[in-house]
Amino acid sequence: MTAKRINPDLQRERDAATIDPEELTRIIFDGAKELDKKRKLEDAVFSDPDYKSIPLNFMSREEQYEEGIRRSAIAVTKKEALGDLIENHNDLISYNTLACGDITAFGIHDSMFTDVIKRMSSGALRQKLLQKTINYEIIGTYAQTELGHGTFLRGLETTAHYDPNTQEFVLNSPTVTSTKWWPGALGKTSTHAVVLAQLYTQGKCHGIHPFVVQLRSLEDHKSLPGITLGDIGPKFGYGANDNGFLRLNNHRIPRENMLMKYSQVAPDGTYTKPPKAELTYGTMTFIRSMIVRASAFGLARGTTIAIRYSAVRRQSEMRPGEPEPQVLSYPTQQYKLFPLLATAYAFFFVQKKMVETYSVVNQQINDGDYTRIQELHGLSSGLKAFTSWATNVGLEICRMSCGGHGYSMSSGFPKLYVDFTPNCTYEGENTVLLLQTARFLVKSLKEGKRGAKLPGTVAYLSSNVTELRARATSAGRDLKDPRLLVALYKERAMRQIMFASDKVEAARSEGLDLVGALNRASVHLVRAANAHSHLLVVENFHEKLQELKVSQKLKKTLLQMFQLYALDGITNCSGEFLEDGILSGTEVKAIRQYVVELLPLIRVNAVALVDAFDFRDEVLDSVLGRYDGNVYEELLKWALSSPLNKTDVHPSYDKYLKPLLHRNRSKL
Amino acid sequence: MTAKRINPDLQRERDAATIDPEELTRIIFDGAKELDKKRKLEDAVFSDPDYKSIPLNFMSREEQYEEGIRRSAIAVTKKEALGDLIENHNDLISYNTLACGDITAFGIHDSMFTDVIKRMSSGALRQKLLQKTINYEIIGTYAQTELGHGTFLRGLETTAHYDPNTQEFVLNSPTVTSTKWWPGALGKTSTHAVVLAQLYTQGKCHGIHPFVVQLRSLEDHKSLPGITLGDIGPKFGYGANDNGFLRLNNHRIPRENMLMKYSQVAPDGTYTKPPKAELTYGTMTFIRSMIVRASAFGLARGTTIAIRYSAVRRQSEMRPGEPEPQVLSYPTQQYKLFPLLATAYAFFFVQKKMVETYSVVNQQINDGDYTRIQELHGLSSGLKAFTSWATNVGLEICRMSCGGHGYSMSSGFPKLYVDFTPNCTYEGENTVLLLQTARFLVKSLKEGKRGAKLPGTVAYLSSNVTELRARATSAGRDLKDPRLLVALYKERAMRQIMFASDKVEAARSEGLDLVGALNRASVHLVRAANAHSHLLVVENFHEKLQELKVSQKLKKTLLQMFQLYALDGITNCSGEFLEDGILSGTEVKAIRQYVVELLPLIRVNAVALVDAFDFRDEVLDSVLGRYDGNVYEELLKWALSSPLNKTDVHPSYDKYLKPLLHRNRSKL
Repeated sequence: MTAKRINPDLQRERDAATIDPEELTRIIFDGAKELDKKRKLEDAVFSDPDYKSIPLNFMSREEQYEEGIRRSAIAVTKKEALGDLIENHNDLISYNTLACGDITAFGIHDSMFTDVIKRMSSGALRQKLLQKTINYEIIGTYAQTELGHGTFLRGLETTAHYDPNTQEFVLNSPTVTSTKWWPGALGKTSTHAVVLAQLYTQGKCHGIHPFVVQLRSLEDHKSLPGITLGDIGPKFGYGANDNGFLRLNNHRIPRENMLMKYSQVAPDGTYTKPPKAELTYGTMTFIRSMIVRASAFGLARGTTIAIRYSAVRRQSEMRPGEPEPQVLSYPTQQYKLFPLLATAYAFFFVQKKMVETYSVVNQQINDGDYTRIQELHGLSSGLKAFTSWATNVGLEICRMSCGGHGYSMSSGFPKLYVDFTPNCTYEGENTVLLLQTARFLVKSLKEGKRGAKLPGTVAYLSSNVTELRARATSAGRDLKDPRLLVALYKERAMRQIMFASDKVEAARSEGLDLVGALNRASVHLVRAANAHSHLLVVENFHEKLQELKVSQKLKKTLLQMFQLYALDGITNCSGEFLEDGILSGTEVKAIRQYVVELLPLIRVNAVALVDAFDFRDEVLDSVLGRYDGNVYEELLKWALSSPLNKTDVHPSYDKYLKPLLHRNRSKL
Repeated sequence: MTAKRINPDLQRERDAATIDPEELTRIIFDGAKELDKKRKLEDAVFSDPDYKSIPLNFMSREEQYEEGIRRSAIAVTKKEALGDLIENHNDLISYNTLACGDITAFGIHDSMFTDVIKRMSSGALRQKLLQKTINYEIIGTYAQTELGHGTFLRGLETTAHYDPNTQEFVLNSPTVTSTKWWPGALGKTSTHAVVLAQLYTQGKCHGIHPFVVQLRSLEDHKSLPGITLGDIGPKFGYGANDNGFLRLNNHRIPRENMLMKYSQVAPDGTYTKPPKAELTYGTMTFIRSMIVRASAFGLARGTTIAIRYSAVRRQSEMRPGEPEPQVLSYPTQQYKLFPLLATAYAFFFVQKKMVETYSVVNQQINDGDYTRIQELHGLSSGLKAFTSWATNVGLEICRMSCGGHGYSMSSGFPKLYVDFTPNCTYEGENTVLLLQTARFLVKSLKEGKRGAKLPGTVAYLSSNVTELRARATSAGRDLKDPRLLVALYKERAMRQIMFASDKVEAARSEGLDLVGALNRASVHLVRAANAHSHLLVVENFHEKLQELKVSQKLKKTLLQMFQLYALDGITNCSGEFLEDGILSGTEVKAIRQYVVELLPLIRVNAVALVDAFDFRDEVLDSVLGRYDGNVYEELLKWALSSPLNKTDVHPSYDKYLKPLLHRNRSKL
């Protein structure tokens, strides 16, 4: 393979960089060894002709679905041959992602279904299913949400009535709204599902419990009697996924198909409740940290495409006779993209912190110490919402920064966006999550006032406001000083939490109960949780900067990224820094100018900073973001291979167009 | 036809409304007579079985394209039979939009191509093409943008060299980047194109001129020799449109095919230049006002779907045993949707104002008075960018406010978004437009300082800052007073323009030329133009409120909408109001609370306010936004008819899934 000629504009950017992108890549991928493994996995997948196909964007939804099944099926056997390259569950997920992209058919099976069977099955059920699950002799999904019920788990309507005469559960979807809706791979692919249903036994409802339901015959894949299921129809994205619906009509399953690790129904119908209710926090935190990671890498992809393309694209002669400048040279373009680039790094570091915190708290929980569970929940909920919303908005800014070509599927942006945006809704709708974080913050503030010692991420809420303020408003201060910036964010968060908290108190003093008061103040609570999450990102970025052992040049560049992230964040919500005098108007204006002055400094390394994310072209899947920058030739090639170009004259000409164009001829 | 039962939650909202939506509908659609015509046109189209098909979301791109051709072709003949209902060009566009939706194949033909032929053709060319164009014996498109060239017209590379020997132009696409790219209906549909190319004659380049090029044979639709063209491939949206590419290789066209109304090339090659260069401002303003209208109606559609669905959707028990509240009752949901509803009305009124201003200035231009051309350009550029960006963001907020179901194609949101978002990019990329507006503002400020009288929308820039400020900061002021709110926005815009202007001056004093100084200050200039456009929307909404002759109840509701729009706008960029002390921190906090207090007042009429937009279900095309609110039953029906549900077992089972699931059996 000879290297293709690199677009000279892009090459010039790389040559001018002061940092070595590889140094940063090693940090992002946890050291040279892990990075090496990642690249070997990529080589293994992308050199395999079995994983090649025409672009997914040229396929119909049915074709995409079929391609997903095809790749997922071969990936099962191929990965067994890779030996050392797949050491753990993470490697497995990486391999599947590379091999199947976003069209994996077994994503839910590999994660949630297998996990639930491993953790919650016991006895005969475990005997029956565990090995088949691991061997892909059955394919499972996880059926929780219903047509009329999402966030509020207790509102689910599917019922499981225990019949002691036959020792079976009778499952029903009693209403239209109780139809299971959305589970991935439920419509056409899965043979089994973990179904969440209201458990009734001995005339009493015991709330939501999980049951394993076989959906389709293992002989011919036909749906079983008493079961109506199918695909829920096309969506914004995830075209290849048969997200499905399921209705149960007096469908009977053996008693042992209830997942009885934590609660049980005895043969006579006697119910035993679980020992402790909220042990699911941990898993949820882990999944949410994965969404923060997806946010970081989403922005990394978006900025990689947009920054490389902006280096190649030339537009608008500034002065007659001068060449058109690279779009990347315009301050307005830098102002769109560089803060998002800084955000990608900020989110990346905060995700590492989340995983660390998760692991510490998990250890504490195992040791019987539950003190930090709530903090962990508040942390993960807030960061999931904060980072996914920022990324959602940021990806569209990246796309539109590429002008018209960003709108073409060839840019990679449309797919990137539609596949990312559900992160704002699933695993806890963002507004609901921020309200949960806020509730914890309001409670912590109150406890802090009473002198209680608060855990790590909310410890600042026990500080005295005046003291915090003094730190943030010391004279002769340098507005680019990272420590000052962190103190400013802390002060701002504290004040937003106090403001919301006051509104809750005001509502209570009018006679509302706590639930009513929290609801009335909810708009302010969301703002407070947002300010807190923003602080966590800024503070953590700063801490990481101090910890990292890197070259001076890289350190300097990362400091610029930190400053841009923190300063730009201030200008975007400057009101919250001004309203209590934490910053003066003069200072806000100065910060606005600092942001603009940082842009050309970062520009020097912009391409290197996105190269460091180490996206292979096959992963990036963007004509605009190609490593070699040969954008225009490839756009033309891509278009020529588009399905509408199979024939010069489209069949609709004879059917509809010709009769119209020629209609006056026949009159002659 | 018996009326379907209305969802009782939705009916209750309608019964509780204090306003009559029909009164508002008459205002939106310019009176009872026009409204009646609109509804008759809708009846004509939606009662016609020829315009029915399966949902477009269930079709492949090829099928969508073919359906577009089919409907567009029959619409040509059907509309001729409608007589009085189609009186003018607007009616024609309305009819086509209803009949063909966004899949019209002749959109560019009906607007730009026909317009250019009418305005710019003369002599033999007019004789040859005008009647055929009107009769749809030829279909035309408008080929301006190129693969490497969008915003900057002078950078286009396509060449047209005049050959006096044969009296022909020789057209060429000399580079890859000169490939014409994006024109609608160019790929497969059009027989002709107006091609913009650099005109060379007698050894000299005379810049960009329009030429008519026949692309395809009128006998069999095959592309002609010397012409390579096709579809540019799938995009984020507009699946049915064959946006195309075109390469010209020594393609000869007769001299008369140049559009010679304004400039000419004589048979011997002598060039005559046009009398006046910038007469295109008018048309551009008109098209941009159409985008502002699209913004208003885009948000109207989005809020109609989201607000109706939020009235039907119940979620999360607040207190044990209580019913789950309507999502519409949550302050956080109201806070997402009601400001967008207010924005829809604000944009709607400002678009009316644009059309009025356009008509006044157009009259002045016809009378030889060019004084307001620049103002009109500044106004239309700024408002196009400001409103399309706000709508772009707002539509996604609406979609996500519907939770998971917003992500389904059945919600109507995905299509609404992808079809709207190009408005931010075409007809002038938004950032570029705001910079043009800003340049006009900086110039006006300077002239105002020198004592020049400034035209209407920028007259405030000649006021004395202290005076403006005194008006905005009078003691004992009522922060909900509309006049005060307008004054505050004026003061804020003025100060942002002054700030940006100072930065331009600072750069000039460092020795940069004007272009360089404007470029260096461009980030600040965009902010200034944004603040100015925001003011125009607020000020105009206030003026309209005073002019409208409506019932007291409606007036009160519209005043609430105005207050919400203006107050919420302040909280979203409160820093710009605080930094110069126009508002105090205490006032900003009070405004934040006013916004929250306005929400339940607006809630009473929220459904009525969206009903007033008068979207028929066929137009809204959203299961979530149905007038009758029967969301869940219809979602299930919609899913059942989805193509993946044609068979219980998908064909990929036998091909790929069965061999995997059964692989261990064969080992036995």
